[in-house]
Amino acid sequence: MHRYPLRVRYGDTDRMGFAYYAHYLRWFEIGRAEMLRSLGMSYKEVEEAGVSLPVLDAHCRYLKSARYDDSITIETGVAELRRASVRFAYRVRRDEDGAVLAEGSTEHCFLGRDGRPARPPHALVTVLERAPRAATPRAC
Amino acid sequence: MHRYPLRVRYGDTDRMGFAYYAHYLRWFEIGRAEMLRSLGMSYKEVEEAGVSLPVLDAHCRYLKSARYDDSITIETGVAELRRASVRFAYRVRRDEDGAVLAEGSTEHCFLGRDGRPARPPHALVTVLERAPRAATPRAC
Amino acid sequence: MHRYPLRVRYGDTDRMGFAYYAHYLRWFEIGRAEMLRSLGMSYKEVEEAGVSLPVLDAHCRYLKSARYDDSITIETGVAELRRASVRFAYRVRRDEDGAVLAEGSTEHCFLGRDGRPARPPHALVTVLERAPRAATPRAC
Amino acid sequence: MHRYPLRVRYGDTDRMGFAYYAHYLRWFEIGRAEMLRSLGMSYKEVEEAGVSLPVLDAHCRYLKSARYDDSITIETGVAELRRASVRFAYRVRRDEDGAVLAEGSTEHCFLGRDGRPARPPHALVTVLERAPRAATPRAC
Repeated sequence: MHRYPLRVRYGDTDRMGFAYYAHYLRWFEIGRAEMLRSLGMSYKEVEEAGVSLPVLDAHCRYLKSARYDDSITIETGVAELRRASVRFAYRVRRDEDGAVLAEGSTEHCFLGRDGRPARPPHALVTVLERAPRAATPRAC
Repeated sequence: MHRYPLRVRYGDTDRMGFAYYAHYLRWFEIGRAEMLRSLGMSYKEVEEAGVSLPVLDAHCRYLKSARYDDSITIETGVAELRRASVRFAYRVRRDEDGAVLAEGSTEHCFLGRDGRPARPPHALVTVLERAPRAATPRAC
Repeated sequence: MHRYPLRVRYGDTDRMGFAYYAHYLRWFEIGRAEMLRSLGMSYKEVEEAGVSLPVLDAHCRYLKSARYDDSITIETGVAELRRASVRFAYRVRRDEDGAVLAEGSTEHCFLGRDGRPARPPHALVTVLERAPRAATPRAC
Repeated sequence: MHRYPLRVRYGDTDRMGFAYYAHYLRWFEIGRAEMLRSLGMSYKEVEEAGVSLPVLDAHCRYLKSARYDDSITIETGVAELRRASVRFAYRVRRDEDGAVLAEGSTEHCFLGRDGRPARPPHALVTVLERAPRAATPRAC
């Protein structure tokens, strides 16, 4: 899977002392954006080509807590690529010991500027086909 | 289900013009907090009684977009109550036409101050048993 | 000043147990949006009339901590109205004892759809002239 | 000034297409945390030494818009170091052309575990004395 390093910031924590659960979805966004960039097409370029990938579904399982100032790595891959949608899978790892803190997935459709389903640009399909494959974590 | 009104703020939107997908988890937090309060025990009181409910799992399906300044209602109920965990289910409705914008669920365990599984305070169990029941949206 | 009630959410807190400092700017946004609405023109309608009010400057003094689940009130007024800009002033009060937790201000210019300075719509000027007046807190 | 690179994320943008104004305070947090770390004492270590640096005052002037996927650099320095407080100054630059997008400052006091003013740990004072100096942007 594609790997991207991050750090847990003060603003990510809540009064339990851990990263607030909604921030993981933001980390997933960073993971998929950086995976696309690393494969040659940034998500900004995807939108400039007239297609957006709104989220249909998001899921996250929280296994261990991310704490303030932890170095973490977002691992991202493509779990499923269809004509009209794509599902990314993610793992959040703590760098110190490699522990998996969370795993999840997001599903996106391809939408044109008119707000209707659209064929993704060829360059994006190529990028998604070349992306590392990942298993979707099972829903619990 | 318990109902709580909110409004989509500028800071919730992204450059697509819609509410950013991570904010729905925040809305779910507000929904469950207000449901507990309405039943007689705020989540703050739960923590003061020595038990916290960290999130094990969160899921959201995004059906229609929430837009800036939309009046929305968070509907919350208990989908499943077990000895060691509880699952809440949520629906986000647009007030203008009642359309369901999103539905989701979160699962929580009961944790004591020592970070180990704990029996929830009796008052919390009573509240959760009295809470409106809700079906978990199917994973997609 | 115009008054709007809010509650400090778990996602607003940080590991110090207080509301994270950036959230106050979000509360200021809510305060000015609700003040405009209460005077008859929502900020959404302002943008639909072709004018936006981007922020030029924001300032906040933090006097006492806002804690999880605190009921707070955002007080908002107009501190200064010029041809090309407007400055709002804010106070965040804790409802329990009326203590001022923070005070601040934001300055905004009027921008047209072309991204250039624009005259605000007449309806907006009327609203801003009718708005409660407030002193800008002194910079420290 | 100390320099730390960041990227504007989708979740940072609002429906104007620019980074939402509250996120700059988050970027300032990242700037000061990374400056402290680079000088040999992370903010986590400061807190572990029994002292926290709550924010007394924050100010930001927004000069140009940060847009989605912009590479930016947070420049951080110490503007003023007193016995009981420290003021950091910041500049946010767009990497593409070096333009200053925003500048600001935050003032912090030194607080002990008992919530009362405290002398900062000697190691922190050394770090702050060695930090790059920066002018506070003038309040406007």
